[in-house]
Order: sequence, then structure tokens, then C-alpha cells
Amino acid sequence: MSSATTRTPYLRLDSDRVVRNIQRLRDQLAPLGVPLRPHLKTAKSVEVARLLFDGGTGPITVSTLAEAEGFAAAGCTEILYAVGITPAKLPDVVALRRSGVDLVVLLDSVIQAEAVAAVSNESGVRIPALIEINCDDHRGGVEPDSPELIAIARALSDGGEVRGVMTHAGESYFCYTEAELVKAAENERSVAVRAAESLRDKGFEAPVVSVGSTPTAHFARDLTGVTEIRAGNFVFFDLVMAGIGVCTVDDLALSVVTTVIGHRPDQGWILTDAGWMATSRDRGTARQAVDQGYGLVCAEGGEVIADLLMTDASQEHGILSLREGSSRELPELPVGTRLRILPNHACATAAQHASYQLATGETWPRITGW
Amino acid sequence: MSSATTRTPYLRLDSDRVVRNIQRLRDQLAPLGVPLRPHLKTAKSVEVARLLFDGGTGPITVSTLAEAEGFAAAGCTEILYAVGITPAKLPDVVALRRSGVDLVVLLDSVIQAEAVAAVSNESGVRIPALIEINCDDHRGGVEPDSPELIAIARALSDGGEVRGVMTHAGESYFCYTEAELVKAAENERSVAVRAAESLRDKGFEAPVVSVGSTPTAHFARDLTGVTEIRAGNFVFFDLVMAGIGVCTVDDLALSVVTTVIGHRPDQGWILTDAGWMATSRDRGTARQAVDQGYGLVCAEGGEVIADLLMTDASQEHGILSLREGSSRELPELPVGTRLRILPNHACATAAQHASYQLATGETWPRITGW
Repeated sequence: MSSATTRTPYLRLDSDRVVRNIQRLRDQLAPLGVPLRPHLKTAKSVEVARLLFDGGTGPITVSTLAEAEGFAAAGCTEILYAVGITPAKLPDVVALRRSGVDLVVLLDSVIQAEAVAAVSNESGVRIPALIEINCDDHRGGVEPDSPELIAIARALSDGGEVRGVMTHAGESYFCYTEAELVKAAENERSVAVRAAESLRDKGFEAPVVSVGSTPTAHFARDLTGVTEIRAGNFVFFDLVMAGIGVCTVDDLALSVVTTVIGHRPDQGWILTDAGWMATSRDRGTARQAVDQGYGLVCAEGGEVIADLLMTDASQEHGILSLREGSSRELPELPVGTRLRILPNHACATAAQHASYQLATGETWPRITGW
Repeated sequence: MSSATTRTPYLRLDSDRVVRNIQRLRDQLAPLGVPLRPHLKTAKSVEVARLLFDGGTGPITVSTLAEAEGFAAAGCTEILYAVGITPAKLPDVVALRRSGVDLVVLLDSVIQAEAVAAVSNESGVRIPALIEINCDDHRGGVEPDSPELIAIARALSDGGEVRGVMTHAGESYFCYTEAELVKAAENERSVAVRAAESLRDKGFEAPVVSVGSTPTAHFARDLTGVTEIRAGNFVFFDLVMAGIGVCTVDDLALSVVTTVIGHRPDQGWILTDAGWMATSRDRGTARQAVDQGYGLVCAEGGEVIADLLMTDASQEHGILSLREGSSRELPELPVGTRLRILPNHACATAAQHASYQLATGETWPRITGW
């Protein structure tokens, strides 16, 4: 089906922008000498993974076992499952490792480490784990110098493998200057390296030091001691990333294509057939300097329409109106006009769709579920 | 797979609560003498549709053509597609009508009416439409006494069929007292009936007068002149509906089952494996008197854990903490503990999942996409 006749709303992917975004991060990381282990939780697409590796298969990071299984089926053999492991999921981890995948899990407690060690011993399949380190109080993780870190490594090594440490600079999503971003990247690096050194001081090899988010990956100046960078959002980028200053609106590779279905001139509204079911409820720019509503509106060709936002949404209705304070006139967009909405948060918007539609007519499926 | 071993997070459906919720609305509407045309945009499930009709198939309301096609394939023959029609979708409407489905579309402009009439004439398949009426400025629709309403009916009748009128009391989601809800229901009824009378005064038959939302359906005291009630959320209910006072927390039929994956006692956090990917980003209770965060937390058996909320979410991480101002202690919930999250908005949370898991072990699929 050509994109001109694809039923709206649908998720459009500009693969040339993906290629450009990947190249930009490669260029940024090359002089720092650290390889990417991209997080595929944003794209959840085998075809996007192939773009990341010029047709190769990894190493990659995932956020669900369904992703691990899906990418393993597509030939990926080096996978980090970067959400704290639930002990009940370990039999599925064993099954994936038995199939030839070097699947690494994440944990930050002795109870999880004991479970990994026990399942390793019972199954005869030694499960490697990274220990999650807290670097800025945005999620889980233990402190880099804590006795708890060593206790976890001890419990883990009793059957499992202490593969190393991982941290995530959640704070970087709240940075708005280059100086803040550079600082967040350096904090992430130094905390992770300190944790690895704590482990090595106690005799654990801990070869992996894994850091990264899309903002810190783009603003890291020094990655000494780091062995891999996890970033994921950068393949598509979004308005939140543009608001932080990691990209420009021209870099955004995802958009929701929608059709005008009505007008309420008395309210200053244009109604469309893309509601929150198509864009998600994510309002990530609401806390930024420029609130973009549910997204910026573009013509079908991709040109941003000045001051027009998707300002409200019900399940299958979008409301477009002028940005507060705009002195422009509401543009004339008759019923039937196709538009594109640039999303606040690519991970969330993509998750509302089963596949990506490309300008070429190709459909790239997404891995869904858990 | 038994629910005890289903990988978390997953969407649990308590079908006994669905049955009870359906019976309650039937009991409310029976003395008013108006049949239901339930909106299946919430459930998107053939099995839930069967519960609504004691094994029968309709009439129903849908929000996408994918739902219309899915329910038609399951034997539903009376379907209202209650989102303003995009002219480009009319060939698919014709195809469904040719297959024997009485598919009715919605519109609120002369341009849409002309498109429906033209496609009806070209195809030889007369397409019926309801005209959308504005009753409280929350979405599209024309005024019930406007010349525009008559102009739309004239354009439509030149090939298509003026099946009647439809309105939706969006304001009812912002009502918080019985008196306000009764008033919103009466406003919805009176505006729709007035519009139908405007059409009949000009010689259009307009047999259908369609109103309803979950709040107004439960608080209507008189439905004189109304021919059908569209409500959909009531099959599951949610915290937003409980906050409005349409149901109690004990009526909520949907929950996200999740597992504890960590603790940050220094922050007062319990971490789980259900983030916004599993619950949606919907924060519908944020504007209500009691903000429930991303949802109330229950034990695996369904008992609400006092003052514990899912207060924050990243893609695959949930953060549970005590309600602000609570004097309780954070409960002891070790890693591996299964919990349930009651959602703010059933429509949005269900949309994050491909299927419902029942306590019986059954899996009920959802219709997805557009």
C-alpha cells in the first residue's frame, strides 16, 4: 500500500533521518573509543537494528524478554536485558542462553543475586549479570562505594558471573545547558568507573562498565574506563530531546500521519483522526521551557506549520490549535488534509503502533509485549 | 499458562466484575426504556462484546475501522463508527456495508456529507450517517438549531441517508456531584432531541438519537426522545470513574499485574517491572480531588494496600511510594512479590496490551490498530 492511501492515523518513519542520527552519534563516540550497545527499547525493530550495525546484529540492549527473544530470533547474540531481573524470569533467561545468546541480566540486590546464582547452579547455565549503580537518584541501583555492592557481587559469584556494572543518568533528561549535560555525562562515567574499581579491589573482574542515555552519549567528553554506551532514543529523537538541546526538530525521524476531520472555528480548533491512541498520552515537554502540547504539526511533506500544536486529545480525536500567545491566524486546512504530528516522546508514541510505515512503502514491524 | 506463571507485567481482567458492571447499567437503563449501543473502544474484545449481549452481537459502537472490521468478522452487523469520517475511508465503509454490515458513519460538515453522498452514488451503496451535535464544547459537532445542521442533512440526503443525530457529553468527565452528572445527562439528551426535531421539522426522518458516556448513562433520569445509549468504559471502570463517583474501586475489572524488582529505602521507593509501557502515561486523576498517581496498588489477590500508589514511571520501571501526607510505613514487599495496579484510565491502559488474561487461564485478544 502506498503511503498516500495508508489509512490514517499511522506511524511514519523517515529512515534517512535514522541513518543520519546514527552517523552523528558514531562520529561523536569514535574519538572517545567506546563502542555502542544501543538500547532497542525505542525502536523495537529488527530493521532499525540492522541500520545500527550496517546489517550486523549487535551488541544490543533491550528492556523486555520479548525484545530479547525477538532480536535473538533475528540473529542477535549479545544482549543486555537492562531492567532489574525478576527471579521468576530466570528460566526464560536460561533458555535464551542455551540457544546461544550471551544474555546478560541486571540486578541491584542480594536476593536477586542469590536467585541468579541458584538458577545458574541448578541449570548448569552460568548467568552473567551487571550490578546496577545509582548515579543520580532517578531509579534503582546501589552506591558505588557501598558494602552492599560487594555483598551482591559475592552472592552472584556463587554460581553466576559478575560481568560488571551499569548506570543510567536519569538526571540528564532534566538538563538544559551544555554544561549541565557534560556534567551529567561525567558524573555517570565517574560513578560507574568507581563502582567497577570497588569490585576489582575485592577481586571481582567486572570487565563491563556500561553507561549511557541519549543526552549523555551526545555530551560525553571523556569516557575513560567505560566499555560500552547504551543510548536508544537517538535513532528517532523527539521533541523532548530537541527541548534538551540534543537534536533539532529537523532530526526527528518519527511522525504520526493524520487527517483533518473537522473544524470548530468558534473554539479555534482543527480536529483530526489522531488522538492519544496514536500519539500516546506522553506530555514530556510540559515540564520544559517550551511546552509542545501533544506535538508539533507539520504539513504532509514534513514542513513545520508555525505555531500550530496538537493541544488536546481524546482516544481517537486530536485537537490542533495555535500556540498560546501566537499572533498568527489558524491555517486553512480543509477536511481530508493530511498532516504529520512530531511526538514529544518517540518511545511512547512508537509503542502505540504495531509497525512503521516508510516512504518507500515498506512496513517494518515492531516487537510488542513482554 | 496459569496466571501464577504468566510473565509480568500483564493485563488481568476480572470477568465477574465485567458481568456485574454490565448488569448494573442494564438495571439503570431498563426503566428508562432505551437500549444500549455499547462503545467497544474500551474493551476492543469480541469476548467482552458477547458478555454485553448474552452471547449476541450488537448493536455496537466503535472508534476505528479496524474495530468495525474485527467485530464484523465476529458476526456484529449493526455498527456505528463514532469518529468523524475521513472521506478517504469511505471505500472501506462501502466494503463493510457490502459485506452485510449496517455500518453508520458520523460527520459534522457539508464537505463530509457531500463526500458520503458522492461515494454512495458512485458505489450504489447508500451510506447512512449520524450528524454530530455539539452539546458542551468538548469536541466537534454543530449546534442543534443551526442552519449548518440543515445544510449538512440536505447535502447528505443527496445520495446518502440522514440516519439521525449523535452527541457526547464530554463535560460529564469533569462533573463531581450527582447534581452535576444529572444535569450533564439532561443537557446531552435535550440538545440531541432538539437537533433531531430541527431535522424532522425540515422533513428529514432522522430516526436515531444517540447519546451517552459512562457518567451520563449512569445518571440519566429521563431519556425521552433518545433511541440509544453509547457507554463503553463501564465494562471495566477505572480510577477516573471512581473519582467522579460513577463506581467504586471494588468495581474495577482491569489491573496490571507486576512484580517487585527492587527497593530504594532512602527514597521511600519500591520498584516494579510495570512502567508506563504497561499502565500508559494517562494521569487522568491528576485533575481530580484525589490524585492517584499512575494507579492504586493492590496485593496479588486484589486487596488495596492502603496509601500505596504507583507514583512514577519510566518505560519498564514503576515506582511505588506512599501517598503524600501518609503516616503509614512503607509495606514490606520483597523482590518477587506480585502486585496489581488499578489504572487511572481503562481505555488507555488496556491499549498498552495485546490481550486480557483471565483468572481462568483464558486469554482474550484485543483488536488493535486502525
